[in-house]
Amino acid sequence: MIRIGLDIGGTGIQIGAVDEDNRIIAKSSIPTRIDLPFEDQVEQMVSCIRQLLNPAKNPALSLENVISIGAGIPGIASKEGVVINCTNLNWDYAPLRQAFQKRINKPFFVDNDANVAALAESIAGVSAGTSSSVFITLGTGIGSGIIINNKIWNGHHGIGAELGHMILELDGIPCNCGNSGCVEQYCSATAIIRMARQQVLVHPESLILSLADGDASKINAKIIFDAVREGDDIAEKIFRKYVAYLSQTIAGVVNFIDPEIIILGGGVSKAGDLLLNALRVEFPKYVVYRDQKMPRLEIASLSSDAGIIGAAMLS
Amino acid sequence: MIRIGLDIGGTGIQIGAVDEDNRIIAKSSIPTRIDLPFEDQVEQMVSCIRQLLNPAKNPALSLENVISIGAGIPGIASKEGVVINCTNLNWDYAPLRQAFQKRINKPFFVDNDANVAALAESIAGVSAGTSSSVFITLGTGIGSGIIINNKIWNGHHGIGAELGHMILELDGIPCNCGNSGCVEQYCSATAIIRMARQQVLVHPESLILSLADGDASKINAKIIFDAVREGDDIAEKIFRKYVAYLSQTIAGVVNFIDPEIIILGGGVSKAGDLLLNALRVEFPKYVVYRDQKMPRLEIASLSSDAGIIGAAMLS
Repeated sequence: MIRIGLDIGGTGIQIGAVDEDNRIIAKSSIPTRIDLPFEDQVEQMVSCIRQLLNPAKNPALSLENVISIGAGIPGIASKEGVVINCTNLNWDYAPLRQAFQKRINKPFFVDNDANVAALAESIAGVSAGTSSSVFITLGTGIGSGIIINNKIWNGHHGIGAELGHMILELDGIPCNCGNSGCVEQYCSATAIIRMARQQVLVHPESLILSLADGDASKINAKIIFDAVREGDDIAEKIFRKYVAYLSQTIAGVVNFIDPEIIILGGGVSKAGDLLLNALRVEFPKYVVYRDQKMPRLEIASLSSDAGIIGAAMLS
Repeated sequence: MIRIGLDIGGTGIQIGAVDEDNRIIAKSSIPTRIDLPFEDQVEQMVSCIRQLLNPAKNPALSLENVISIGAGIPGIASKEGVVINCTNLNWDYAPLRQAFQKRINKPFFVDNDANVAALAESIAGVSAGTSSSVFITLGTGIGSGIIINNKIWNGHHGIGAELGHMILELDGIPCNCGNSGCVEQYCSATAIIRMARQQVLVHPESLILSLADGDASKINAKIIFDAVREGDDIAEKIFRKYVAYLSQTIAGVVNFIDPEIIILGGGVSKAGDLLLNALRVEFPKYVVYRDQKMPRLEIASLSSDAGIIGAAMLS
């Protein structure tokens, strides 16, 4: 038996068939076509699934073997399978379950992409075997997913797990959400890049700028971490500040819901041990009961496959 | 059948017998004697329970009828019934279950007092019938209790539900916990009193000062809210600021874990509708999905009995 998972992003859609051992046995992708009407977009996804289901290639890949279909989306969805809000895709109360089921009549589930990644890690990734976890994606924005008692917890009304929009600084940096001082403005990839761009204005001698070919607009998170590894003072200063912000956010998660494990994903998490080691020293300083056993902090292990695997695991 | 609940505070211990309808059918209290050794303190509590169990007065009040004993403490406890940390009582890894059970051999449970109040409200108070809630006590400090799927969630390691020590302002007001900018420094009774004391230094004409008999050290939360009701401008200014702080904290709870209901308890919550109405207007402004259905905000309904009832409900 297999399950189909769709990782629906703003630019592309990854589609995979996942077996009972949580392995992807077939995978394909199509570009996201937000220029098309919603029903046509769904039609394209369904076509891609039908092509993937090729029993001639692998007998397991038959429509009869499909237990369910799940999708992760960069937005929020209702328990009834309606995508309530998904800005990147221009979907507004889009009846995704209904649109899928009239084409392929299988159980269909949809959830936020960070929730889906949290679920994937908790079943087949770094948090496998734990019963509670918080997954934090450090990308253009901040996403988060909460697992409690082995299940996604996205709140009673389905509007939770938005760690990125908790306040970290009163009257702080304005955020796209309309408020100010949100975690996202201090802990996202965008935030550390902004910090670096500000610093190279004052310190053009920083290695960061030369690694970006002298063009501040080319600075990305990887360049900053590379400069830290090379011992650049300015990069080190930015890194320390970023680590302090992220540590306070991680400690907030510990102080409030204390999961078994906290997992970092997204572009910034590719800094790996450099970031992880610094955070592991720093975040416990902000935990109230810092002399007690506390959540482990790890980097996500499934990388880009988490979206497909987690979506397939939805139920 | 009855359950015994102990609400162990820094100055007094309330003890009650609770029936199957969650009503307190007998109640007593003793002063907290932190000057005594731990075992003697437990002996006094047990004596009080034995006096309460008077079948001559009420046949239900017999030791045989006691299903379990539970205690709420201003600190944290392990699942094994050891009070790990309880500063107000000078308890440090105190084996409370063991000490009770060698005197009365009944199932014994202990949990943090805010968790216990959250449980009580969710069973017999304002959040009865809900499956998830967050209880916030606005007192000298900030306590919080989380109920998820009808059970106390105090974290995998038992160090969670410390909303008061999430960061609300980077490098903000120093907190007793060793960090700076904690929610407690902006949203507790202590915080609003501090704000008022600072303001009356600059604005001695404020009604706040006259309600405090001209003595800033006598200002308490009630005086500030009374002055707001009387239309005092300075009190109104403080109130607006406090409401903004607390709204951002409440919205943070919504954005992160989105419970079915959020309940306010503690001294400040006695401001009642004045506070509740202002918060209900203000907090949704800070919620990401503010156009969706979101948690109700209510004032606790069990008042001081919540400690006994919730402790009795522990299992």
